[in-house]
Amino acid sequence: MDAVSAAVATKPPSIEALIGLARRDMAGVDALIRERMESDVPVIPALAEHLIGSSGKRLRPLLTIASARLCGARDDACLKLAAAVEFIHTATLLHDDVVDASELRRGRVAAHLIWGAPSSVLVGDFLFARSFELMVEADSMHALEILARASRVIAEGEVLQLTRAHDLDLGQDTYLKIIAAKTAELFAAAAEAGAVSAGAPPERRRALRRFGQELGLAFQLVDDALDYAGSSEVLGKNPGDDFREGKATLPLLLAIARTGAAEEPFWRRTVDRREQTDEDFQRARELMRATDALQSTLDLAADYAASAKAALAEFPAAPGWRSAMEELADFAVTRHA
Amino acid sequence: MDAVSAAVATKPPSIEALIGLARRDMAGVDALIRERMESDVPVIPALAEHLIGSSGKRLRPLLTIASARLCGARDDACLKLAAAVEFIHTATLLHDDVVDASELRRGRVAAHLIWGAPSSVLVGDFLFARSFELMVEADSMHALEILARASRVIAEGEVLQLTRAHDLDLGQDTYLKIIAAKTAELFAAAAEAGAVSAGAPPERRRALRRFGQELGLAFQLVDDALDYAGSSEVLGKNPGDDFREGKATLPLLLAIARTGAAEEPFWRRTVDRREQTDEDFQRARELMRATDALQSTLDLAADYAASAKAALAEFPAAPGWRSAMEELADFAVTRHA
Repeated sequence: MDAVSAAVATKPPSIEALIGLARRDMAGVDALIRERMESDVPVIPALAEHLIGSSGKRLRPLLTIASARLCGARDDACLKLAAAVEFIHTATLLHDDVVDASELRRGRVAAHLIWGAPSSVLVGDFLFARSFELMVEADSMHALEILARASRVIAEGEVLQLTRAHDLDLGQDTYLKIIAAKTAELFAAAAEAGAVSAGAPPERRRALRRFGQELGLAFQLVDDALDYAGSSEVLGKNPGDDFREGKATLPLLLAIARTGAAEEPFWRRTVDRREQTDEDFQRARELMRATDALQSTLDLAADYAASAKAALAEFPAAPGWRSAMEELADFAVTRHA
Repeated sequence: MDAVSAAVATKPPSIEALIGLARRDMAGVDALIRERMESDVPVIPALAEHLIGSSGKRLRPLLTIASARLCGARDDACLKLAAAVEFIHTATLLHDDVVDASELRRGRVAAHLIWGAPSSVLVGDFLFARSFELMVEADSMHALEILARASRVIAEGEVLQLTRAHDLDLGQDTYLKIIAAKTAELFAAAAEAGAVSAGAPPERRRALRRFGQELGLAFQLVDDALDYAGSSEVLGKNPGDDFREGKATLPLLLAIARTGAAEEPFWRRTVDRREQTDEDFQRARELMRATDALQSTLDLAADYAASAKAALAEFPAAPGWRSAMEELADFAVTRHA
């Protein structure tokens, strides 16, 4: 290892390299997003701006741009697809917050608490439709196919989560199926659509789809762990939300399985029946630490991140897009530090 | 007029002729709809079936089929577009009922009252995504453009209605803008997409778009009149719903304008503040009859229906699709009888 590599290796992974490479493209994506959230109906841009203008990292459109450029895209078709991806994501967040009755999103009061649930539902529909208008402009039937399918899979994942959310006997396989659909599918589709817009051959398209899929799983697992370990500044939402909602995420499922019969009354009361005192969240955190439930969740996330990086072996090892994407995968699992 | 024409002229207009011509196509559309509302997540087909299996007339997909066949379509690409149109419509109904907290839809208890509002929102999203998957299969970027745009315009119309719904000073122009967006746009897009799938030349495509647009306006105006004049059997929803919700539809706006200062306290109380007794709806109906507000609404609907029929002059006068579509326009305004 030479001196430069060693110096790089000691820095914690970040997404700065990727953001730097994509700066010009992402400025274009941002301009498109702002242009297309406009409407003659004033509530629409106001509500959309509340979410889109806030602290979101724009990871998904970044993935579309990175994939397209890694595949050698020379034109700007990927910008429209990237904006479409962000609109699908924002529409999903708006509907999610109504479904979950969440109070905070990206560090702000959730939109439905300001404009009402009906406006959140309808502006979500507006953004969803706008995303398809953008895809039509990008003029790739293949990218449309990928993102229409992803939108459908996300909805299926959300319904599955809704109907099984409070099931303490939810298996790890069903939990993984839910997060694969509601989170990883859009990461996968975002990356694949970028490759498609660059005219990449099938093996590169599949490699980038896999990168997105595994990265999405890693991100969601870390999110679910942070809900028991993080602070509201890091999260942009209240820690303990999942616990208060009795949401069956992996840290909780592992803690329940590992504490066995001794703690069953505690979990039945706090999660099943959602009868919680202020101390219960602290106790849940302690049980998670004692059983290594959080660490196991983070270990699984690290496995997925490693697998995401392995998918990039399809591309020549080189500084630039590939190494910045590898660093993104590392960032996904170290950002809780 | 010969004997046959005279006999036909005495029969009230109906959609039977159109349904007869489209029977085989609509059976295909129905099979597609049933196939594509399937999902591994059981709530999705159950909830979708509740709406799709009920008494809906499937007017919008019928319009896609009729337009395509009138333009000489020989293949079945229009079936996928027709199913996509019905899915967009169903998704809109599901979200609408959540937004309006409606109790009845198509003669059944509204889905959100059985499965909950979150499921209605998410299954609406599923159907919306499915509709785009169907459009991708139909493989016409132009049809996708038309229907993506329509979906966006519908959402804008719904938000506009939501924010202005209880505005007693709503002008007739804003009311017409709302129904053009939330209702007529999908009729227009359904007809235009059918023409596009048949490879019709621009002037025929525009003629069918106009037919759909004017027909949609006529239908919505008659619906809004029926809410004050019909029975729940005809409507598939409770008469008086619009009044109870204080929804500013044309019959109400006309009655308010024509009763002037004398009745202003009545309207302010019942519509603005929605403080209503059981007798108030009856009184509103009487004021509408006394001021001809209902008749004026129906007259305007008749004008639009006539304009819809005029648009068909682009096609040779002949029995078959064209005359069945003309009868549909007549049916739109006589069905209240």
